[in-house]
Amino acid sequence: MYYPELELHFRKMARLNHLEAICSWDQAAMMPPGGNTARGEALAELALLVHTQATAPQLEEWFAGAERELLGEAQRISLAAMKRRWQQAALLPGDLVQAKSLAASRCEHQWRTQRRNNDWAGFLSNLTEVVKLSREEAAVRAAHAGIGPYDALLDMYEPGMTTMQLDILFDDIREWLPPLILQVEENQKSRGYTLPVGPFPVERQKALGLKVMRLLGFDFDHGRLDVSTHPFCGGVPTDVRITTRYDEADFMTALLGVIHETGHARYEQNLPRAWAGLPVGEARSMGVHESQSLMFEMQLARSWEFAQLLAPMSAEILERGQDSAFHPENIYRFNTRMKRGFIRVNADEVTYPGHIMLRYEIERALIEGKMEVTDIPDAWDEKMQAYLGLSTRDNYSEGCMQDIHWACGSFGYFPSYTLGAIYAAQEFAAAERDIPQLRGNISRGDLTQLMDWLRNHIWQKASTLSTDELIRSATGDGLNVSFFRRHLERRYLA
Amino acid sequence: MYYPELELHFRKMARLNHLEAICSWDQAAMMPPGGNTARGEALAELALLVHTQATAPQLEEWFAGAERELLGEAQRISLAAMKRRWQQAALLPGDLVQAKSLAASRCEHQWRTQRRNNDWAGFLSNLTEVVKLSREEAAVRAAHAGIGPYDALLDMYEPGMTTMQLDILFDDIREWLPPLILQVEENQKSRGYTLPVGPFPVERQKALGLKVMRLLGFDFDHGRLDVSTHPFCGGVPTDVRITTRYDEADFMTALLGVIHETGHARYEQNLPRAWAGLPVGEARSMGVHESQSLMFEMQLARSWEFAQLLAPMSAEILERGQDSAFHPENIYRFNTRMKRGFIRVNADEVTYPGHIMLRYEIERALIEGKMEVTDIPDAWDEKMQAYLGLSTRDNYSEGCMQDIHWACGSFGYFPSYTLGAIYAAQEFAAAERDIPQLRGNISRGDLTQLMDWLRNHIWQKASTLSTDELIRSATGDGLNVSFFRRHLERRYLA
Repeated sequence: MYYPELELHFRKMARLNHLEAICSWDQAAMMPPGGNTARGEALAELALLVHTQATAPQLEEWFAGAERELLGEAQRISLAAMKRRWQQAALLPGDLVQAKSLAASRCEHQWRTQRRNNDWAGFLSNLTEVVKLSREEAAVRAAHAGIGPYDALLDMYEPGMTTMQLDILFDDIREWLPPLILQVEENQKSRGYTLPVGPFPVERQKALGLKVMRLLGFDFDHGRLDVSTHPFCGGVPTDVRITTRYDEADFMTALLGVIHETGHARYEQNLPRAWAGLPVGEARSMGVHESQSLMFEMQLARSWEFAQLLAPMSAEILERGQDSAFHPENIYRFNTRMKRGFIRVNADEVTYPGHIMLRYEIERALIEGKMEVTDIPDAWDEKMQAYLGLSTRDNYSEGCMQDIHWACGSFGYFPSYTLGAIYAAQEFAAAERDIPQLRGNISRGDLTQLMDWLRNHIWQKASTLSTDELIRSATGDGLNVSFFRRHLERRYLA
Repeated sequence: MYYPELELHFRKMARLNHLEAICSWDQAAMMPPGGNTARGEALAELALLVHTQATAPQLEEWFAGAERELLGEAQRISLAAMKRRWQQAALLPGDLVQAKSLAASRCEHQWRTQRRNNDWAGFLSNLTEVVKLSREEAAVRAAHAGIGPYDALLDMYEPGMTTMQLDILFDDIREWLPPLILQVEENQKSRGYTLPVGPFPVERQKALGLKVMRLLGFDFDHGRLDVSTHPFCGGVPTDVRITTRYDEADFMTALLGVIHETGHARYEQNLPRAWAGLPVGEARSMGVHESQSLMFEMQLARSWEFAQLLAPMSAEILERGQDSAFHPENIYRFNTRMKRGFIRVNADEVTYPGHIMLRYEIERALIEGKMEVTDIPDAWDEKMQAYLGLSTRDNYSEGCMQDIHWACGSFGYFPSYTLGAIYAAQEFAAAERDIPQLRGNISRGDLTQLMDWLRNHIWQKASTLSTDELIRSATGDGLNVSFFRRHLERRYLA
């Protein structure tokens, strides 16, 4: 029997990836700076080992053998997921993998300084090398799959998603988003809010974050909350590590960040244990993962109903019982303010898709050879003007150098953010349809039915369905941007 | 050239051991309980991988080849250290390694409950299996080295140390220790002290620990202090992780524990970087390692001179400026109180060797087949009576079940503790000889010369010398217990 051998092999790799996940978390959240060089070498050694196992020569025979075996339905699905993973790993020549890893690591490392110094010229040469190698990667993957080069990269993060679908989607958004932004801006002129004024001591903010995590069902027996410069959700499903960073002048950013990462965390914590360590037992895609964090942060936490919970809870723990900035109405307005800005990670949910469309168009053109790295700043400026009415002329730090993704060679990742926002709106609409009292329950702090809905329709499905099947089975509809548009209009034009 | 291949191979293994060290630290200091099973599996997978690399078939040829190569003196020493490591790993049949690892893991796991329940009968059968497999291990190692079975285990922790030397040593101690204990007891009747009374808030204790670590030269760019149930020093030389645990009623135990682990940490942090990842670049032995922690804790921190620093520093940070318990004289008396007791880890430096002699005699007889596991409780009670005048009849929890070592199959480890105490006294005496103003410097808080002495004579030597050579080059004498005896008499009979 080959199939059981394959399960053993993939579970072995998952154990090594467990160590990678914990040591990477440690690197970001715990490690003193002097430990970095040796840690980098240790993680690179492990990556090499895992890559060797992921492309082990016996796998080809094992897959051929397993496909002839009498397997149950679940095993067939699992086998297909393993095979897809293997092909993705084995496809690239070893020297391309290594060259890209080195180029990306150098580019990312220098980017940290270059971004601070607005040094486009310095960044340009490193990024050119990363783009060159990413084009080579895309060509190899595209030739194997018989699809276009950008589609091949997209497929790494969003299996099954295509540029054709994205074009339809973004054509739609491009139509209504810029006018919507202007309308919301107009609408917000008569909709003021009071800024909650700090200092909010870090210890109090942490207590508030932990309390909200408990309300949201985070399992502290299988995870923890810590601090890192760039918040993320890491670790392994049995031990999920989320991070945040605190600013004593502003408690809301950290709090909403904790809620966002808690969405990622609950997905991981509620993946089916029986498939632990197998590709079929992993989260479906980056977009679906982001739909869980945005379900928690955008659909749930910034809603009018959740403000009824968040306002008194924050006032109590931050000791602002008498502060009018902590009234539910003000918290709601504060959490749904919109402001056009340069920086994607600071963007509100209305302007965010503009940032993504711009990146999608540029990175796709780069990979398809229709644009060169030298053309990026002009293209960036032109699209920022078109989508958000802002100029980034000569402002690289707050323009095309603001993100880490391209420096790392992660082309094809950006669309996942907006797909996540769309899926989240669609899922929330479906949950609202299935749970008549949903909004009332939320304002009373009863999240049981919503969480059960997510567990049954998303979390427990892991990768047993394609993304399209998953979204259809959960919502009754394929990817449909109208729920997202309606959500924005209802929340921001009311 | 084979020698460079060997260096590459050992450095690769060191990188994997880096991940093991960090994930084990995380398991003890950070991990939520629900993460334990998956973590255990991940670490076991890595251990298997490292063992496979440590016994890789090509190594035999590489060692043979390298021994014929023209190498420098440092390379020769390095080669010998690598070969020793390889032989120790390759010597045991794989199924014995696995059987012992499983038996020890089961025995240790159940011991945690059995100890609490004073359940000797339950522990007995698990320990019998561990002893059986440890005897088999000792027999294989002994046959290879042409030495006795206990000597072969001892050699794992204290390379070069023999039962012959230990017998001479312990015969000596057995002579003078019991009467010394009685004398000190008599002496302390007229030497009272005031107990510092808590509560001492954890945050204040932590601030005090960090301040003392800075005074002792701990490099926070390459290490950190955290909390765990059982304090230890872990991590890697570029990132040393020490832990402590806090009791609000008693600040001194945590503080002296931090000082102890800082001694281990400075040794690791000051190993020569050029040999990082090679056996020759590692700490010399368990006994030498313990001599550094005891140098810091016993020789330095409990001295009269250090009390002049510790008392005002503690009073200030714990906000006890007016508390007479924080006078230097009282802190000194408090830190040099002696009390016979059941528990080794709570023992003072005078009674401690009694605990070790007892364990040495029993574990040696067990490994040599002269005693069976069923005989342990009687032997324990008899020796506790002889060395410390205490009965452990029917008290297994505070008797032969108090330590984790035998449950883990770590026979041959215990002597390192007392060797460490002896080396520490000998090293301090040598430093005092070489640095005329040493004690005066200490009471003024100037530790530069002492630290330089340790760096030059111990830390930077790593494993380039045998333990005997190291101690001789540092102190001008081989292992000599008289310095330890003189230290105890001077401190406790004055």
